[in-house]
Amino acid sequence: MIVIGELINGMYKDVARAVANRETDIIQHLALEQVKEGASILDVNIGPYSKDPAREIRWLVETIQAVVEVPLSLDSTKADVIEEGLKIAKKRAVINSTSADAEKMDIIFSLAKKYNAQVIALTMDRSGVPNNREKRLELAQVIVAKAIEYGINTEDLYLDPVLLPLNVAQAQGIEVLESIRDFRLLCNPAPQTVFGLSNLSQGTHKSRSLINRTFLVMAVASGLTSVILDPLDKNLMDALITAELLLNKNIYCDSFLDAYRKK
Amino acid sequence: MIVIGELINGMYKDVARAVANRETDIIQHLALEQVKEGASILDVNIGPYSKDPAREIRWLVETIQAVVEVPLSLDSTKADVIEEGLKIAKKRAVINSTSADAEKMDIIFSLAKKYNAQVIALTMDRSGVPNNREKRLELAQVIVAKAIEYGINTEDLYLDPVLLPLNVAQAQGIEVLESIRDFRLLCNPAPQTVFGLSNLSQGTHKSRSLINRTFLVMAVASGLTSVILDPLDKNLMDALITAELLLNKNIYCDSFLDAYRKK
Repeated sequence: MIVIGELINGMYKDVARAVANRETDIIQHLALEQVKEGASILDVNIGPYSKDPAREIRWLVETIQAVVEVPLSLDSTKADVIEEGLKIAKKRAVINSTSADAEKMDIIFSLAKKYNAQVIALTMDRSGVPNNREKRLELAQVIVAKAIEYGINTEDLYLDPVLLPLNVAQAQGIEVLESIRDFRLLCNPAPQTVFGLSNLSQGTHKSRSLINRTFLVMAVASGLTSVILDPLDKNLMDALITAELLLNKNIYCDSFLDAYRKK
Repeated sequence: MIVIGELINGMYKDVARAVANRETDIIQHLALEQVKEGASILDVNIGPYSKDPAREIRWLVETIQAVVEVPLSLDSTKADVIEEGLKIAKKRAVINSTSADAEKMDIIFSLAKKYNAQVIALTMDRSGVPNNREKRLELAQVIVAKAIEYGINTEDLYLDPVLLPLNVAQAQGIEVLESIRDFRLLCNPAPQTVFGLSNLSQGTHKSRSLINRTFLVMAVASGLTSVILDPLDKNLMDALITAELLLNKNIYCDSFLDAYRKK
């Protein structure tokens, strides 16, 4: 499982403040902790309140790269902000994200080609997030076709069926699980599949971690290859490690949780 | 989900002692607690050490039925012991279990027909437990054909793919998950699917509850309709309730765990 750590995001007040005040320690601590707890990629998002996006994304990328060696997922709605990050990324980056809209894909896939980056593509378009698996699959096909047109290897494409909050779209969970199965059969080599897990329990007031980890286990069984989450949620990571063990992806021993973490 | 409580089993020393000494309180407490925590059927097994099986199963069934009104799963390798229970069961009982061996099925399905009982049938035979889904499906077909021959409604048949301990048969977990999908497509009406969950972590020394609940969540996503487990494991029941919520089988509210339990 490719775990993408979500915590360096200007949506969180402490991160936004750390970015605005250039508090290196706070960001580097978040980077180090997430990698220590199992993140193999770190998401980097300056957040919606940034006054100087180009400079801030550069500072963030440099600050993180000074302490960890993992690839970064450059997370922004603005292609020029993403490009600032791509210019200085030391490891092969992930662009987060494009929609299935043609103009957006043209911009993002051009960038991906230019900087040899991977791409997260959401199966949604101008008309919104589909409410069934069929429409998600249709958009996934459009995305794959466009990626191939740009000469992007389908293995470098992360298809995201868009996980919606449980409390407003409860019926969508099953559709997302089925979409993960569908996407893996779309092309050869199979694309990666991914979603932002925390979105599921956005706005719920109890049992957030329980909701998140229960859905993640089901998605792992459906063939999910990558996930954006909070790696500091120990119960969540325990569930993920155990799910992969039960699917025979790691060898069982009594101390499998420790053994996996030391790996 | 049909939850079958597993705790009244003479395999456990305290239960064996309670049965031998006719300690009504201990058995009734286990019955009441399991039903309170969500069991809709109680498994009843006098265990391997019984000196007087016919009398002991009658005492157990009567003792349990004096305090709870749920159906019982009469769990024994001996048909005559099962029949003693069937004779006095107040609710429609479940026979636990038959294998796919013809002679065994003839005896058990005859009993089921005579007493209008449901049947748990293991997809294993004299040659052992299959190590792949194909062989499990083959045995499931044999079982379904025999059940139909005896005029048993396929909805009253619980097909059990036989969950083996993780530490000796790690690769079998996936096969069991796939078998659950397969079995549901075997006939119309679809048979129930079931397994004894605790068997998975038999012999493991750490994280038993984590292993059990993680596998259960995956099995629920695969379409499992029934499970034999320890309903007093609160984390396990929380995971089960949450899995069913995420599959849209119960309506979300912030206190969904409490709401489900009060139901």
